[in-house]
Amino acid sequence: MELLKQRIIRDGVVKPGNILKVDSFLNHQIDIRLMNEIGKELKKIFADKPVTKILTIEASGIAIASIAAQYFDVPVLFAKKAKSQNLDGDLFTSVVRSYTYGKDYTITVSKKFLTSDDHVIILDDFLAVGSAMKGLIDVCKQAGATVEGIGIMVEKGFQDGGKYLRENGYNLHSLAIIENMEDGTITFRE
Amino acid sequence: MELLKQRIIRDGVVKPGNILKVDSFLNHQIDIRLMNEIGKELKKIFADKPVTKILTIEASGIAIASIAAQYFDVPVLFAKKAKSQNLDGDLFTSVVRSYTYGKDYTITVSKKFLTSDDHVIILDDFLAVGSAMKGLIDVCKQAGATVEGIGIMVEKGFQDGGKYLRENGYNLHSLAIIENMEDGTITFRE
Repeated sequence: MELLKQRIIRDGVVKPGNILKVDSFLNHQIDIRLMNEIGKELKKIFADKPVTKILTIEASGIAIASIAAQYFDVPVLFAKKAKSQNLDGDLFTSVVRSYTYGKDYTITVSKKFLTSDDHVIILDDFLAVGSAMKGLIDVCKQAGATVEGIGIMVEKGFQDGGKYLRENGYNLHSLAIIENMEDGTITFRE
Repeated sequence: MELLKQRIIRDGVVKPGNILKVDSFLNHQIDIRLMNEIGKELKKIFADKPVTKILTIEASGIAIASIAAQYFDVPVLFAKKAKSQNLDGDLFTSVVRSYTYGKDYTITVSKKFLTSDDHVIILDDFLAVGSAMKGLIDVCKQAGATVEGIGIMVEKGFQDGGKYLRENGYNLHSLAIIENMEDGTITFRE
């Protein structure tokens, strides 16, 4: 998606350790006009899918999921990062490795809100090694829900998450795939 | 807001310890149509304010902040709950007491995105004792930003957060104020 790529080039900041900071428009401050254009694009991409729910994970995925859900006219469901027993009742859970924070955490989704009747688009801001995405897919599997597609704003193409998902047959669409940013210059995959 | 109150009556679940679960439409699964109606209502309430930014806190505030921001046509800024040093540079921070989890945590906002030029509407899903809200106000004070208003979806009127904010002159609007739910029956403040 050209608009997003241009914005990454203009406002993204590459930090040592292959970190791309997009906190001025995507995951701390959020440009809602841009989110709307992305939401429309995601609807175009998945227009032929019978979607019943947009699934994401807290926190920064919630913005794009909420804006995009307007175009799909379905509810959002966001997986929580378990902190307590405050969520009651029956939960689907999956363990996710965080490479940013160097530890595992558990994600939870209430069984009430994800069933075998659901056809899900999973949306998130970033895809790198794909740990969180595998957790979200795992939760869908446990529910018997159908994953109709996966939409990502920024994929780090030099990490293995996207490769794994494509090889395993998931309908993955990343709006910007970064091939390389090692010397501080961002190159996108064509 | 009648639509929200009706929905709370219909789908809210009162749990022991004055806990109101609204996870079927507000803070786990999210009814985006309802969020849109709430977003429009918030714009009506704060129509005369010169708003430059919607401020909220992760995670569940992000949905209403993002949807409402469309009507204000301004960016969203969400305070993060500090987990690591991954946010670089200069940060405004404030310590918030979580009564749900029984501990303190630090919220952070990048100094780049909140300045004395900003006129802010703070939005959140719940207001109870007001700890998180006081943290968000503190961050605005540090930045020299003007708090033009505070919009809350569900205020627990039997806790002190709303009283504190009104007595201190904040332009607080809660769309549903629960007066009592002790016996499992929800009564709203008129």
